[in-house]
Amino acid sequence: MDRIPILKMGHFLLVTIQVDLYDRLAMDLEADLVKMVSKTGAKGVLIDISAVSIVDSFMGRIIGNIASMSKLLDAETVVVGMQPAVAITLVELGLELPGVHTALNVEKGMELLQGMIVADDVELEEDDDITLS
Amino acid sequence: MDRIPILKMGHFLLVTIQVDLYDRLAMDLEADLVKMVSKTGAKGVLIDISAVSIVDSFMGRIIGNIASMSKLLDAETVVVGMQPAVAITLVELGLELPGVHTALNVEKGMELLQGMIVADDVELEEDDDITLS
Repeated sequence: MDRIPILKMGHFLLVTIQVDLYDRLAMDLEADLVKMVSKTGAKGVLIDISAVSIVDSFMGRIIGNIASMSKLLDAETVVVGMQPAVAITLVELGLELPGVHTALNVEKGMELLQGMIVADDVELEEDDDITLS
Repeated sequence: MDRIPILKMGHFLLVTIQVDLYDRLAMDLEADLVKMVSKTGAKGVLIDISAVSIVDSFMGRIIGNIASMSKLLDAETVVVGMQPAVAITLVELGLELPGVHTALNVEKGMELLQGMIVADDVELEEDDDITLS
């Protein structure tokens, strides 16, 4: 099993990280996710890290990369299920995960993404109004 | 990472199998899933095996067990994302996965579960009518 599966759920993609992200696997995940966002037109990427108990700067960078790449394709990234110990490590390592939103669990992450999409739509409509008037 | 995470999504639980299910891990998954079904009152369990390329009789039995246990707690089990090679192996091995529904992907699996829940509700309502008349 040499690929991390990406599940499409409505407008979102869900990835569960259960194994250690070594170099090749991480690169493949980045590439697969970006391809999948582009192919499905997904508006959000949910990354569940509830099975991850140890985080290092490499993993932090991979998640940051995914968020930046997805953002370029107009998809938001939400990391869910972070263990308290991982949050402590991230802060102690000074890793900021720029562009990454977080939520307590998948359900809350989905709500967050739904909210962002609705907010985007409202903004678009408001823009339309301005153009029309 | 010694546990397979179980994600709650609405009325359903989602499990993605990405690693080889050796004895202990499989037992833990069974126990965790049953506890989670009981705790959350979930009506369905989705098992994604899109990352599984090799299946043996042990894995087949584990999935069958999960389905039987969930059924006792009033939850249906749907296996999604099966690779064609796995389907071939299952048939060649003569493994039947009793009590397990299958669907092509997570979205179709969710639709299937939704349909089952609605059908259940209708049946219950019909029973009520009979009682009342």
